[in-house]
Amino acid sequence: MPVHLRSIGTIRTPFATKDDAPIQGAFRPEAIGTVEVLPEFAGGLADIDGFTHLILLYEFDRAAPVEMVRQTFLGDELHGLFATRHPARPNPIGLTVVRLLSREGTALSVAGIDVLDNTPLLDIKPYIPRFDSFPEASEGWLEGRAERPKPRGRE
Amino acid sequence: MPVHLRSIGTIRTPFATKDDAPIQGAFRPEAIGTVEVLPEFAGGLADIDGFTHLILLYEFDRAAPVEMVRQTFLGDELHGLFATRHPARPNPIGLTVVRLLSREGTALSVAGIDVLDNTPLLDIKPYIPRFDSFPEASEGWLEGRAERPKPRGRE
Repeated sequence: MPVHLRSIGTIRTPFATKDDAPIQGAFRPEAIGTVEVLPEFAGGLADIDGFTHLILLYEFDRAAPVEMVRQTFLGDELHGLFATRHPARPNPIGLTVVRLLSREGTALSVAGIDVLDNTPLLDIKPYIPRFDSFPEASEGWLEGRAERPKPRGRE
Repeated sequence: MPVHLRSIGTIRTPFATKDDAPIQGAFRPEAIGTVEVLPEFAGGLADIDGFTHLILLYEFDRAAPVEMVRQTFLGDELHGLFATRHPARPNPIGLTVVRLLSREGTALSVAGIDVLDNTPLLDIKPYIPRFDSFPEASEGWLEGRAERPKPRGRE
């Protein structure tokens, strides 16, 4: 420490503003975006086409100040930050799982994207069900909370 | 950019060396570790007890130099870095899903941990199956690759 991150590319999406962006990618499986990787990292994309799902790590570059308890889009009550996926975190790293549709050179077309347009890309990891899929996991306070319109003025 | 990360805590595990650590946490579901969160972030842990699974983001603080194609523990052939979970990445951020066993104040006891002892913690996110579980995802080149002893001299 400290660790200095650098953008390895840019995520292009239809979501120019926070009001436009879905609460989670899983709520908009049809939303299409493009992950543009910088040319110097092109070699790292070899074999990525074999995966149907990818984990994207990205910078929450437009997040509000960090607070340890928060209201969220899916709950009006307060929750501890680490029990939420709120973007304003001590380390502003976002995580989303997307479906890989196709690749053209250093551009990956993906579905189920939920991030803002022009979001800095930090990492791409292959999603591997043996390591990453836990359908039996609980949903904690999110249990039974369905998608709803984003409450105004809330992040 | 640039983004400067800071440790929000420390992950304690039984794995003092890279030879000791499992290839993935899913291969050692019984491995127990402790996530110690710094006191200033204690408030962010409220309600975390309701989740059975957590996503830990951490620093790969002992990784080798970054190369765009790599051999891996599970494959002797070369693969693009972003098609692997290799620790030497442009942004040294690791991701692992663990089971939450219990919490005592700012210490979380977790199972299925695969990181090195004294790893800097960057973030904790709740694992939410609706958002994070994709059992139908392909395994790409990892299809049919079973756990095996780590090849010597390889990271």
